[in-house]
Amino acid sequence: MVKAPNAPRRRESSRLAVLTATRELCEENGYGRLTIEAIAARAGVSKMTIYRWWPSKGAVVLDLIDEAAAVTADPPDTGDLAADLHTQLSEVINLLTPQPTSPVTGVITEAQYDPDLARALRERLIEPRIAKFKDRLRRAQEQGQLPVDADFDVALDLLFGPIYHRLALHLGMPDPDYLDTLITHVLRALNPPPHRLDGAATA
Amino acid sequence: MVKAPNAPRRRESSRLAVLTATRELCEENGYGRLTIEAIAARAGVSKMTIYRWWPSKGAVVLDLIDEAAAVTADPPDTGDLAADLHTQLSEVINLLTPQPTSPVTGVITEAQYDPDLARALRERLIEPRIAKFKDRLRRAQEQGQLPVDADFDVALDLLFGPIYHRLALHLGMPDPDYLDTLITHVLRALNPPPHRLDGAATA
Repeated sequence: MVKAPNAPRRRESSRLAVLTATRELCEENGYGRLTIEAIAARAGVSKMTIYRWWPSKGAVVLDLIDEAAAVTADPPDTGDLAADLHTQLSEVINLLTPQPTSPVTGVITEAQYDPDLARALRERLIEPRIAKFKDRLRRAQEQGQLPVDADFDVALDLLFGPIYHRLALHLGMPDPDYLDTLITHVLRALNPPPHRLDGAATA
Repeated sequence: MVKAPNAPRRRESSRLAVLTATRELCEENGYGRLTIEAIAARAGVSKMTIYRWWPSKGAVVLDLIDEAAAVTADPPDTGDLAADLHTQLSEVINLLTPQPTSPVTGVITEAQYDPDLARALRERLIEPRIAKFKDRLRRAQEQGQLPVDADFDVALDLLFGPIYHRLALHLGMPDPDYLDTLITHVLRALNPPPHRLDGAATA
């Protein structure tokens, strides 16, 4: 079969139309009511076209998130670790809200019932971002902003944990000031004082 | 209508049968496939009986969790804050796993789509437990194990956050040793050294 010369461009334009339609439909109705039929109708492509590139609606939404979550894929490095963490965590909060219509929250929720989607979420989206996050911490370490024995897994859990805790239990997202407070605490946790306090209060 | 003298006892026995059936069905098939019909059949009661006491399957599961989550409802106080936090967080991990069949994880997931269930989850289960958790921290404070200006909201977020972060993104639950590491870091975060380090590394 001979392809028209503009086939790659048409393919890219269809791909973008599908992603745009998916984002709009998520925003309007939430991930739960999203269907491949609705995406196809909104994007002006056939269901066949969608299924040629994506196995499921979850896969479409993962691609959408992958493009939207550019800041977390390539974390900022201005040289100021606390400020950069604030930027990155604010971006994550934006991606997860508003809670009922965020495609990211939709995929996280759906993945609780769908092991294949859970694996794709972890391997395609989360693990590469965790690696980039740890690269950022390593550079901070090289610049003397973190101790040489700082535990990066703990840093990840303590910095991102509060956001998911609040998401899961509907406790409201941190505002910018509280996010500062959290980051200050976590950096203190990662920086042991020269003489340990053995958990005793000093105030 | 005259009630038989043993009506209260029969009511309590039906209530327990419903909760037991709900727990078993969640363990076997997961919260997603749970129905009021299946609960009624397993418990040997009518659907009417269930609907007389509970408006939805989510409400039944909330009652089930409320009884199962006794440790978090009344956190341990042996006088050793770190050890008691370890006990309580281990209990939360047990309640949330195994991930596909835990009723608690099922309710948390379902609540992402159901604002009424989300509100019931937060008001009936979570907020009372947060209040008890803060009472426990206040006693630790009175015993000099936490500084007088320790931020209890930060303590809550940093201690419980990692569990929900790992649950949401399928990163695996903390093992007992790692849980110790997390608690050590959080207690350090809550105990500022006498002279601040201004985020500089000391190692």
